[in-house]
Amino acid sequence: MVEIRKPISVGEAVHRVINFAKQGESELVPIYNAYHRYLAEDLVATHHVPPFDRSPYDGFAIRAEDSTLANIDNSVEFEVIEEIGAGAVAGKVVLPFQAVRIMTGAQMPKECNAVVMLELAKETERDGKKYISIKRAYKPGDNISFEGEDTQKGTVLVEKGTKINPGIQALLATFGYAEVKVAKKPKIGVFATGTELLDVADTLEPGKIRNSNSYMVCAQIERRGADASYLGMLPDDFEYCYDKVANALQEVDMLITTGGVSVGDYDYLPDIYERLGANVLFNKVAMRPGSVTTVAELNGKLLFGLSGNPSACYVGFELFTRPVIQTYLFNTKPHLQKVQAMLNANYPKPNPFTRFVRSRLDFTNGQLSVAPSGFDKSNAVSSLATANALMMLPGGTRGFEKGRQVDVLLLEVDEGSEWPWG
Amino acid sequence: MVEIRKPISVGEAVHRVINFAKQGESELVPIYNAYHRYLAEDLVATHHVPPFDRSPYDGFAIRAEDSTLANIDNSVEFEVIEEIGAGAVAGKVVLPFQAVRIMTGAQMPKECNAVVMLELAKETERDGKKYISIKRAYKPGDNISFEGEDTQKGTVLVEKGTKINPGIQALLATFGYAEVKVAKKPKIGVFATGTELLDVADTLEPGKIRNSNSYMVCAQIERRGADASYLGMLPDDFEYCYDKVANALQEVDMLITTGGVSVGDYDYLPDIYERLGANVLFNKVAMRPGSVTTVAELNGKLLFGLSGNPSACYVGFELFTRPVIQTYLFNTKPHLQKVQAMLNANYPKPNPFTRFVRSRLDFTNGQLSVAPSGFDKSNAVSSLATANALMMLPGGTRGFEKGRQVDVLLLEVDEGSEWPWG
Repeated sequence: MVEIRKPISVGEAVHRVINFAKQGESELVPIYNAYHRYLAEDLVATHHVPPFDRSPYDGFAIRAEDSTLANIDNSVEFEVIEEIGAGAVAGKVVLPFQAVRIMTGAQMPKECNAVVMLELAKETERDGKKYISIKRAYKPGDNISFEGEDTQKGTVLVEKGTKINPGIQALLATFGYAEVKVAKKPKIGVFATGTELLDVADTLEPGKIRNSNSYMVCAQIERRGADASYLGMLPDDFEYCYDKVANALQEVDMLITTGGVSVGDYDYLPDIYERLGANVLFNKVAMRPGSVTTVAELNGKLLFGLSGNPSACYVGFELFTRPVIQTYLFNTKPHLQKVQAMLNANYPKPNPFTRFVRSRLDFTNGQLSVAPSGFDKSNAVSSLATANALMMLPGGTRGFEKGRQVDVLLLEVDEGSEWPWG
Repeated sequence: MVEIRKPISVGEAVHRVINFAKQGESELVPIYNAYHRYLAEDLVATHHVPPFDRSPYDGFAIRAEDSTLANIDNSVEFEVIEEIGAGAVAGKVVLPFQAVRIMTGAQMPKECNAVVMLELAKETERDGKKYISIKRAYKPGDNISFEGEDTQKGTVLVEKGTKINPGIQALLATFGYAEVKVAKKPKIGVFATGTELLDVADTLEPGKIRNSNSYMVCAQIERRGADASYLGMLPDDFEYCYDKVANALQEVDMLITTGGVSVGDYDYLPDIYERLGANVLFNKVAMRPGSVTTVAELNGKLLFGLSGNPSACYVGFELFTRPVIQTYLFNTKPHLQKVQAMLNANYPKPNPFTRFVRSRLDFTNGQLSVAPSGFDKSNAVSSLATANALMMLPGGTRGFEKGRQVDVLLLEVDEGSEWPWG
């Protein structure tokens, strides 16, 4: 009467899912729409940086060899023959004991090899000509930013699959990427199931609760750089639901359902997978919350059957859907980033399965420490609001004591892990 | 000839700016557009969670007192009189030695006070009636999620000024916030100045570089939850620029310019501030990079004159513009989050001013460690791409040795500091 499901380890479950993860396609977008997208090709320096020898200061370009005799007791004078603003280039040949007024960032005249900072030059005028005098000697190369000293042409500066941050935007602009090749966002459909569910705008009724999972999962999808498409709530009608799911699969790159994957009489997702002819990768994982999480595959498309309870749903998404999305976006570290932290509270509850505890990670005195972010039952929703991490406590017969090191998965950090599952 | 500017400390400079920061307005958005906006009012629980006593498992609701005599040698039998799906409510009164089949999440019949998990009940049928028998006793409250045990009605769950994450989306939906009161995004105008600047689509020319700051700053603005409005490059024409700046100020909540704030002959922003009658809060900060950063105020609007070199521009934005945007969005911890970390490389360069070094923060073995993210000159752009933090090294006559603790400001983390400046 009750189907007996055999639980598999989290690592094994993730392994079965990631086997079906595939990289997506790329598209060109204007640079002003590129922020927060994922690079679909390496970002390569298209020229040296700086692209020419330039002055990092306002001052005067000179030939260093002319300054050899300058010292505190002996001024050396230079005639200022020209002025170069940023963006301009020298028009005259600089002869011995001549100087050129030069602005920050401007290209060095080719005869010059040192810059005297503005505040170290004494300026004078005589017979309609300008002069400076200096009281120290300069070596060739003093106060010059050399062509290519920051970056050599052809260097791979940022790898394909990296999320574009403000610094990467600066690089794209510097190297003339007016259009940027980024990963197409996968489209992910979301259905909610559950006869107890009201819509967010509905008044509460006896026995019912509002559908919160869909809004949460859509935000999780967006957080990971994909497009969420909320497809509504599925009613308690098998034929109708079957048609909805089958049709949705034609329109999306992946499909998420929340609820309906337990072994209860109203849980009809397993029957839908069967009718579709989908390959069920697993339907029981040795973890809490979310042990009923089910993932199936049909013609290369993944169907994520997440639990109906909010925390289990949240965890199931982060463990199984996240890495598939990130792989689609060319990220080669697609999983949640795993770090170690000191447990900052007793966690007395033992569990035979791996437990993922909604937690807050803090940085105090240079140390990572972590504690549960609130009431810890798998139906507790409030602890998700303040969680920035999931503690990962191995299964066993005892709880965990304050002060011990535990593994922690980071939720709000873009940078991932290659494989955090032992 | 050269204007002498008196540098002030970073803390003093931030203080002068934040004095003019003000909170913005709020607007209602549909919940499906609320992700990543900032709450403009506290998120309050509008009902208990759970809203009623409910079963956390599939099983049978019973009256615990009827199970007193059950043990491994003595089964006790209950007649199953009804079945309650999730979202349904009991229709019958449960009498002694009667049970109700109940699904996960369903409301408890009011006479029942314990739930027998499905797998611990032996089901039978006799004379068209259903029965279960159990072999252990239950206490009142066993396997029940009680009304309000997660959250009490009226509790403030998330404070105004918090950025909405997926967990907060779940809470908003749970409590019926079909429309969410969020902070309006401030509109921030961005002008680039610099006669050396080419547009991103232009071919490189001698002496010139492409404008990268505008794209970078626009991404920084978006990262902090505001609307960026790129207004173009200002040419080298004072009257024209004055008009452009004066007109832009009518259209935006804050204005950023990049470049033009040094003491060079082509730096005309100071003259524009003077003509506008703006109150210059400072024009020299004891920091590297970005010492020429200038901030002015006119009729309550802030004008950020950021440096023209990319790293200095980046740092100036994060120190001065970020907290003003975050304050506008009701965040009471508007500054970059400050943490301590172990310096993981020698940093031999001394500096009389506070130095902000583009860095990578890493979490190894539960410890925060930090190292420069690349070539460190203020015109180096490549190091910004991989930086997730700024090391903050105090001014002094010596460098810093590997292994010492240093202050670090986090760039990619939403959570801020109330006041990181000593």
